[in-house]
Amino acid sequence: MAAYSVHGDLIWTESAGEFRTMEGGYLTVDGGKIISVSQDRPSCPVIDMAGKLVIPGLSDLHLHAPQYAFAGLYMDEELLEWLEKHTFPEEAKYGDMEYADKAYSILADDLRRGATTRVSVFGTIHTDSVLLLMKKLEEAGLSGYAGKVNMDRNSPDILREETEESIRETERFLRAAASFREIRPIITPRFIPSCSDELMEALGRIVLRDSLPVQTHLDENLSEVEWVRELCPFSSSYADAYKHFHMLGETPAIMAHCVWPVESEMEMMREGGVFVAHAPSSNTNLASGIAPVRKFMEKGIHVGLATDVAGGSSLSMFQMIHDAVSVSKLRWRLVDSSEKPLLFSEAFYLASKGGGAFFGRTGSFEPGYDADIVVIDDSRCRTVLHDQLSPAERLEFYTYRHPDEFVTAKFVKGRRLF
Amino acid sequence: MAAYSVHGDLIWTESAGEFRTMEGGYLTVDGGKIISVSQDRPSCPVIDMAGKLVIPGLSDLHLHAPQYAFAGLYMDEELLEWLEKHTFPEEAKYGDMEYADKAYSILADDLRRGATTRVSVFGTIHTDSVLLLMKKLEEAGLSGYAGKVNMDRNSPDILREETEESIRETERFLRAAASFREIRPIITPRFIPSCSDELMEALGRIVLRDSLPVQTHLDENLSEVEWVRELCPFSSSYADAYKHFHMLGETPAIMAHCVWPVESEMEMMREGGVFVAHAPSSNTNLASGIAPVRKFMEKGIHVGLATDVAGGSSLSMFQMIHDAVSVSKLRWRLVDSSEKPLLFSEAFYLASKGGGAFFGRTGSFEPGYDADIVVIDDSRCRTVLHDQLSPAERLEFYTYRHPDEFVTAKFVKGRRLF
Repeated sequence: MAAYSVHGDLIWTESAGEFRTMEGGYLTVDGGKIISVSQDRPSCPVIDMAGKLVIPGLSDLHLHAPQYAFAGLYMDEELLEWLEKHTFPEEAKYGDMEYADKAYSILADDLRRGATTRVSVFGTIHTDSVLLLMKKLEEAGLSGYAGKVNMDRNSPDILREETEESIRETERFLRAAASFREIRPIITPRFIPSCSDELMEALGRIVLRDSLPVQTHLDENLSEVEWVRELCPFSSSYADAYKHFHMLGETPAIMAHCVWPVESEMEMMREGGVFVAHAPSSNTNLASGIAPVRKFMEKGIHVGLATDVAGGSSLSMFQMIHDAVSVSKLRWRLVDSSEKPLLFSEAFYLASKGGGAFFGRTGSFEPGYDADIVVIDDSRCRTVLHDQLSPAERLEFYTYRHPDEFVTAKFVKGRRLF
Repeated sequence: MAAYSVHGDLIWTESAGEFRTMEGGYLTVDGGKIISVSQDRPSCPVIDMAGKLVIPGLSDLHLHAPQYAFAGLYMDEELLEWLEKHTFPEEAKYGDMEYADKAYSILADDLRRGATTRVSVFGTIHTDSVLLLMKKLEEAGLSGYAGKVNMDRNSPDILREETEESIRETERFLRAAASFREIRPIITPRFIPSCSDELMEALGRIVLRDSLPVQTHLDENLSEVEWVRELCPFSSSYADAYKHFHMLGETPAIMAHCVWPVESEMEMMREGGVFVAHAPSSNTNLASGIAPVRKFMEKGIHVGLATDVAGGSSLSMFQMIHDAVSVSKLRWRLVDSSEKPLLFSEAFYLASKGGGAFFGRTGSFEPGYDADIVVIDDSRCRTVLHDQLSPAERLEFYTYRHPDEFVTAKFVKGRRLF
């Protein structure tokens, strides 16, 4: 790929809480990587985005592809009821490839048009429709992971695999998924309550054998935590149960939610380099609670943001930045006044470089980072103050007022999508 | 105004928690009032909105017009700091009529295009710019109240009136405001900390003399509540201080926020028929807390929703419905498990008929109600499930996914705005 430079008002974070900005800067890309950020016009071709905001691509660490169809529906229910009544019946439909094609086309198209460049996605138990999902995401220009979901217990008949079948299909999924370059496979046990010990043991062996990453759910809801305690008497905690099955800390892992972790679990996550997928919108919609993100950050645990569609009703990472700040304020006010609210710049960091670290080097404009770039025409944000705002203020205004509107150009690993 | 009928998928609430719906119904209007809802085509001209959602207009019980310019900015701060550093300096600019004209034009235009039909608005201390605001809102086709703000203490020099001047300007405001038909004047002491006892006494006399409604702030933030306790040693509570000055319960009143009310204040509000303007987004953004809305409803206190721009960053009442549901879930989970979360249908009621009651008969499709009607083309909401959804599900989906997009027609008191 030949070198080029994107000219505009650059803004990014290299550490939590501190914006780096360059108005009228040149962001130079070569071979799909960021080469430099400079005020001087380089000799390579320039893509003129003058006056527009240029930010790193954002990473969505956790979403359920088959649930996008009903994101924003059935919000009057709590997690376990919501799963039984709506989520499982809807997911069962994805055995039908025609249905999956229709639904995943909409998801891939909406993801393409937004500011998300990296994703870690749950499919369903249906191997072929997960492979179709991977194809759609890759064709949409996104990068990341997708998983065939495993579930062989505590699930309705229409969505429960036999243990052997679940293992066999996982192997078939891994073989077939090897043909994709940008969307790679990830081991995806739904959560402990849906997977028998035998299945978890088999998946753990596959994880170790192929050094595969893992994504699952942890400590989302108090009833769920209590349930896992009953299901896994051999473990000292929910996280410890995953560790027991080699799914926490031995290979890269994303644990979604972590709303109710105990100290020993946080220590385990820190040691294992586990990524917390913080899903503020979902944790609110499903009345799960508010995750102690400030604590995670202080302890040095990796944190990224996640829409958790359809627990979260929005596909927008800007909305997640807004929501992460919002719920941190309520946690500070109502739960623990020692946990300072997240600053906007901190939440932006989590959505870009923080969560991006799961995928390698993405989410920042530092040299050597993948050229994941999003251009926003915020001149369309209407306020009399517009001309007086700094890039950081423009980004905040945009985030709160027009999440995921006005995305005018997008690059993933240097390749321009539109 | 001649009779006509709007044909579409009608949905409204007559009581909290229960949707009334009629797919392919006819909503007939005569003389600016709802006449009937029927499945039968009437003889009058029909406005064909087949397949679209037809809902009552929504009421925003509390917003600050001069703050719209920075709604979505400076969200890293708490109430009192945010007022000093950003809000007061910005409001001071509205002495400049040219600036006010530019800013209020944007606000009026954005309100016009959304689903809000009734508003109760704070201006600034500047009489002439408040009159300009009233003109803009009236020209935009909205109905409701606007107030010249009073503040003669604990405010920066650029935004503090002399006591006499504040009273004199209030009288001038009331005389001039009499020329407007749809946007009427409302007495608007900013809040107790900004108004001396002498000013409050004078305003109270005007309220009683002219039987004027009142809007102000109550129990928003713990530091503010403590401050009022010090400022008003003669009162038993913050609400009691307003009552002392004849501003609570003697004429119609809107009290914004009420996040931290004590029992005696709730009793006072109920007795006085006071409206709580519940502003969930603002109370979150400014880390104020979560108001006990379920308690208000159980006690029979009037509740409506409010954007509280710019404490709230969005002008959308759909977003407020979403946020009201959201924060009620967190309150239930984290604060008081006896207060059940709001259902979507309950929050919709608060935004329509609940808050609308402050303005008379609006926010429902019952005969005799003002014909405040909003038409939404939700066919543009993309989901494979679209054709299977009930009107209530479509409204929820729209509220969570596309707040205030796709408003294709709007009527206020029977007059079509677009």
